[in-house]
Amino acid sequence: MTYSELYQQIQQKRSFLCVGLDTDINRIPTHLLDAEDPVFEFNRQIVDATLDYAVAYKPNLAFYEAQGEKGWQSLRRTIQYIRKARSLVFILADAKRGDIGNTSGLYAKAFFDDLKADAVTLSPYMGSDTVMPFLKYENKWVVLLALTSNNGANDFQFLKDRKGEYLFEQVLKKSKKWASAEQMMYVVGATKAVYLKRVRAIVPDHFLLVPGIGAQGGNLEEVALYGMNTHCGLLVNSSRGIIYAGAGVDFASKASDKAAELQQQMEFLLKKYMVI
Amino acid sequence: MTYSELYQQIQQKRSFLCVGLDTDINRIPTHLLDAEDPVFEFNRQIVDATLDYAVAYKPNLAFYEAQGEKGWQSLRRTIQYIRKARSLVFILADAKRGDIGNTSGLYAKAFFDDLKADAVTLSPYMGSDTVMPFLKYENKWVVLLALTSNNGANDFQFLKDRKGEYLFEQVLKKSKKWASAEQMMYVVGATKAVYLKRVRAIVPDHFLLVPGIGAQGGNLEEVALYGMNTHCGLLVNSSRGIIYAGAGVDFASKASDKAAELQQQMEFLLKKYMVI
Repeated sequence: MTYSELYQQIQQKRSFLCVGLDTDINRIPTHLLDAEDPVFEFNRQIVDATLDYAVAYKPNLAFYEAQGEKGWQSLRRTIQYIRKARSLVFILADAKRGDIGNTSGLYAKAFFDDLKADAVTLSPYMGSDTVMPFLKYENKWVVLLALTSNNGANDFQFLKDRKGEYLFEQVLKKSKKWASAEQMMYVVGATKAVYLKRVRAIVPDHFLLVPGIGAQGGNLEEVALYGMNTHCGLLVNSSRGIIYAGAGVDFASKASDKAAELQQQMEFLLKKYMVI
Repeated sequence: MTYSELYQQIQQKRSFLCVGLDTDINRIPTHLLDAEDPVFEFNRQIVDATLDYAVAYKPNLAFYEAQGEKGWQSLRRTIQYIRKARSLVFILADAKRGDIGNTSGLYAKAFFDDLKADAVTLSPYMGSDTVMPFLKYENKWVVLLALTSNNGANDFQFLKDRKGEYLFEQVLKKSKKWASAEQMMYVVGATKAVYLKRVRAIVPDHFLLVPGIGAQGGNLEEVALYGMNTHCGLLVNSSRGIIYAGAGVDFASKASDKAAELQQQMEFLLKKYMVI
C-alpha cells in the first residue's frame, strides 16, 4: 500500500485506528474452540466487526509462533482474509525482527512475499543492515522501533550522548536517511506523548505507529495534539481493549462497539487538528 | 543445559564450536530435493557429520520462517533430532526477538516449551522487559546482542554517552544485573576482536557467542586471546563455512572435514590459553 492510499483510507473512514490481533488461544470465547482453526475464526469475526472503523490490522507474531505450524497457518489465513475485505486495509506484521544481510532478506521474504503483509516492525540495534533488505520491496514498509511504551524503554532508549541527545533521537536522525516517509514509519509509544514533540521535530512527515492506548494508559487527545501532521501521520493501535472487549458469544459486537467508539474520538480529533 | 554441563562438553570435545544451521532450500545439494523434508534431511546429515566436533548448533530462524509452516516443521524436526544425539548438545535458536511483557513470554513459550531450544538470541533495544520473561525458565538461556559483526553495528552500538562509554558497554553493564552468567550470554562479533577486551572487562564470566569467523572475516586466534576465560567462555559460530563446504553428494563429509579442522584449531587454543 502507498502513502497516499493509506491517507485516502484515513480520510474515507475518518479513522486512524489499527486493531492489534494479539489473538491468544487461551483467551478466545470457548464457543469458538470447536472450529477447525479457532484463532482464524476469532480473527475473521473481529475483522468483520471492526472493518468499518479500522484502517490497519496488526497481528503480533509471538501469539502465532507460540502455536507453532498451526499458528503460522492461522496467521496466513487471517492475512488472506483481510486482503479480500471490501476496503483496502494496511496489514502490519508486528514481528520486531532485527537481523542483517541475507538473514534480514529472508525475513523480508517471509513477511512480504510469503505472508503478503504491507509492513513489518523492526528493531534498530543492528543498524542499517537490518532495514535495507526490506526497502527493496516496492510499496512495502518498515516500521522501526524508536521510542517504546514499556518501562524497559528507559534502559537504553533514553541514554544521552555527548550532545544531550537521546538514543531514540539518534535512531530517528540516522534512519530517516535510509528511506523516505513513503516506506518508513516509527513506533512511538503513547505513554510517552510528551516526547512526540521531539519526535516530530526530527520526522515531521513520517507515519507513527502508536501503541499503548487503553490497556497501557496512553492518551489519544495528547497523541493527536503532538503527533498529527498534515496527512494525519498516525496509526494508533488498540489490541486487548478491542478484541477482548467481550468474552462471550457477543465478543464481535462488543469489539465493534469499542472500535466504533475509538473511531468517533479519532474523527473528532481529525476535525480538530486537520481539515478533512 | 547448565553452565557446568556446557563447560563439560567443551572439555570432552576439546571444542567450542557452534555450527550455524542457516539452511537455505536454494543452496542444499540437489540430490536431497526429493526427500520428504529436504531441509531436515540436510540438517540431519550435517549434524551426524559434525557432532564429534561441535558443542552447539544454532538454527537461524529466518531461514525456516521463509518457508512458512513447512520451515517451522523442518526446524522442529531438526531440534528433536539433535536432542536424541549421542552427546549432550546446546541448541540455540537464533531469532533475535525483542518484544515485551506477555508478548515476550509467548516467544519464550515458542522457543523453550514448544521447540525445546536451550537458548534464544534477543535484541536489547526495548530493555529488561524483553529479557525477563525468558529468565523464568530454569536452565534456559538468553543470548543478548551486545556488539555485532556487521557494518551497521556502527550506526548505534558505538554511540558514546557523556562518560565516553559505548552503547554496547551500557548494554553489558545494565543487563548483567538482570541475570547471572548461568543464564545469560552475549553476542560479540569476531570482526571486532579488539573490543573483546572491553567486553571482558565488564563481563568476565559470561559465555560469549561469537559469529563472524570465516565468511565474515573474524580471526579465531584473536578471539581466544582476548575472549577466553577460565571456563572457556566462548562459543564460536561458523555457518556457511561448514554447511556449504561442499555442494555435491559428499557435502556431509566436506562439512565434517571443515568442522574437524576448526575443532583442531580450538583444541590448540584451549591448550594455549587454558589448562584443559
